[in-house]
Amino acid sequence: MYDLLKGLTIVEGAAFIAAPSCALHFAQMGATVIRFDQIGGGPDARRWPRAENGASYYWEGLNKGKKSIALDLTRPEGRVLARRLATSGDGLFVTNFPAEGFLSHERLSALRLDLVTLRIMGWADGAPAGDYTINAALGVPLITGHPDDPSPVNHVLPAWDLIAGAYGAFALLAAERDRRESGQGREVRLALSDIAIASLGHLGQIAETLASEDRPRVGNDLFGAFGRDFATREGHRLMLVAITSRQWTGLLDALDVGEQIAALEARTGVSFREEGQRFLHRAELNAIVANAIAARDLSDLSSKFDKAGVCWSRYQSLGEAVANEPRFVSANPVFSTIDHPGGSYPTPGAAAQIADLARRPPEPAPRIGAHTDEILIDVLGLSSHEIGRLHDAGLVQ
Amino acid sequence: MYDLLKGLTIVEGAAFIAAPSCALHFAQMGATVIRFDQIGGGPDARRWPRAENGASYYWEGLNKGKKSIALDLTRPEGRVLARRLATSGDGLFVTNFPAEGFLSHERLSALRLDLVTLRIMGWADGAPAGDYTINAALGVPLITGHPDDPSPVNHVLPAWDLIAGAYGAFALLAAERDRRESGQGREVRLALSDIAIASLGHLGQIAETLASEDRPRVGNDLFGAFGRDFATREGHRLMLVAITSRQWTGLLDALDVGEQIAALEARTGVSFREEGQRFLHRAELNAIVANAIAARDLSDLSSKFDKAGVCWSRYQSLGEAVANEPRFVSANPVFSTIDHPGGSYPTPGAAAQIADLARRPPEPAPRIGAHTDEILIDVLGLSSHEIGRLHDAGLVQ
Repeated sequence: MYDLLKGLTIVEGAAFIAAPSCALHFAQMGATVIRFDQIGGGPDARRWPRAENGASYYWEGLNKGKKSIALDLTRPEGRVLARRLATSGDGLFVTNFPAEGFLSHERLSALRLDLVTLRIMGWADGAPAGDYTINAALGVPLITGHPDDPSPVNHVLPAWDLIAGAYGAFALLAAERDRRESGQGREVRLALSDIAIASLGHLGQIAETLASEDRPRVGNDLFGAFGRDFATREGHRLMLVAITSRQWTGLLDALDVGEQIAALEARTGVSFREEGQRFLHRAELNAIVANAIAARDLSDLSSKFDKAGVCWSRYQSLGEAVANEPRFVSANPVFSTIDHPGGSYPTPGAAAQIADLARRPPEPAPRIGAHTDEILIDVLGLSSHEIGRLHDAGLVQ
Repeated sequence: MYDLLKGLTIVEGAAFIAAPSCALHFAQMGATVIRFDQIGGGPDARRWPRAENGASYYWEGLNKGKKSIALDLTRPEGRVLARRLATSGDGLFVTNFPAEGFLSHERLSALRLDLVTLRIMGWADGAPAGDYTINAALGVPLITGHPDDPSPVNHVLPAWDLIAGAYGAFALLAAERDRRESGQGREVRLALSDIAIASLGHLGQIAETLASEDRPRVGNDLFGAFGRDFATREGHRLMLVAITSRQWTGLLDALDVGEQIAALEARTGVSFREEGQRFLHRAELNAIVANAIAARDLSDLSSKFDKAGVCWSRYQSLGEAVANEPRFVSANPVFSTIDHPGGSYPTPGAAAQIADLARRPPEPAPRIGAHTDEILIDVLGLSSHEIGRLHDAGLVQ
């Protein structure tokens, strides 16, 4: 955790990945994040993966360092409290509740004119969508996986959610920056469908598709340059990429295949210094590189590759990555081992590294409702009498 | 494009996806972005996909609305110019140049004490890495794809790059916000390796792996709840997800399989209102749902699903998505058709939608060096005499 955003308070009424990860980024940069949930937990409270004791690793991963208040959001009085919370603090509200529901920006801005609402949505028209369904609708699973099998392959990383969370944090801070000068509150809506199609547009894939046809499935080959998976003599698998000229010449040097490649260039009349030619002729190039790698052991390749500045990694499982690659977790200042409801384990703080700022260890997620009374007193300014009444009525917990 | 960040000027010296997409987000929120490149283009200038006329759709997608100046970065005088540029404007510099090279923060901050540098890196120690190699090192390809084939399946979306670009935009704005109060410049480093491992940590996957073992490959099934691909009577494929209770009961109603599910609950003694039970018993549940979907046509399912609020999409290619789903492109205010060097095609602006702000159409990417003289005059304050000398010496173009 860094203190870059210290003093800023934002409120989150949300579930799942995109909106909670947005608020998490704020929390890990030092902002105070107040998250409200339905008493007993929202729809993401028990999401897998979970610890043996039932705690959700997922929930406690996405809600680290936040303060939690539990309300009965099904009753009108609980919804009034939620609206008071959403408009409290610095007037920055992150949510994925329905755009036209009881937490609509229209209702909220009536309570606080300068409120900035960041609303994560599925489809921009309010229709339900998740990372997996947007991905299916967008064609990515049809170009993922081995070319000999035409069936779709879902990605397992909720990439659109994670991009939406990070981009949402940027957009919210941009709106807050503008508000400092203009005084203007507003609603910023961010649909997974828009994040996804805009991302493919930014990468040139819409122009590509319209100009020719859908990109074919190329398996583990990198599109448009040189890269794929190869097996070493002992059978380890590597991912190798040569996009830049330096990566390409480094690879040829490390594998001592410069002459074979030059012979292929002479035969075909093309220069593989052009990355696109490396892609077009990948069958021949892959065969040369595959032979060279299959003749060597991982340890030999590893030292040669690193010396030559080759861009590569061995395929390994996440468990192996955590155990064997100190740069990921054990020697990484991003991680600290802290206690959570689900147990004690290495936990990431902000992914950014800022040399001249003190990094505090990440803080664990709260139990749901851990800060209910504190928030009712400090943020909403309620009296102990009023708080007692809310508890008695089952409106807070 | 929105004008939320109007008046802010940032400088980009970068290539590929992560850092350029970070600066793109600024440009599409109204900031002025000055990008400098090697004369003739950097290593990403010809990256695929490309238009028939040779223009890179990729480059022009990631550099929309930026100003371009071309320098000879291989010569000392060109590097001096690059350093002057990097520290110009509002002192916000986005780069993926090597941390210890001629654009090190140490060198730059000697010219401008309050400079904020956002540096995108591969590994945090400076070793080369790309999206694909980080992904291999992290284990995601080993849990992607059909369970009957153990070989790794690379994702085709550069997800870590895109997350890094969006998160980098947030981190840069957070540092700029702090600087407004503290006056403090600093370097923020963001490694793809850290973005990736922190993301999996936030999702609970590190705790999961340490507590039990590596997650098994589950093919197109959604982990931890109910979801997978199914084929309709005509053979269309759908992705269906039921994470929330409402999505689950909506699905059962739409398919009229409530009784079969209740019978299965009675037989197994579990309640499928618990999302985890839906995952554990997915073989039986998938069979029931698969039968029900295989008995119906897409049009029938489509109306029933939408009425019941089911979270689903048909698998389709990107070409089909662009042609047939108006919410993605043709009826989406995020997109405008504008002219680029590579042609005229629908082009995304900022993915966020802000109802009360005027949205201007996105601006095309510049030709490399299109604004060289303008930037030398307006930003660096050079005289026409000096500029003439730089051209004559081949230091700018």
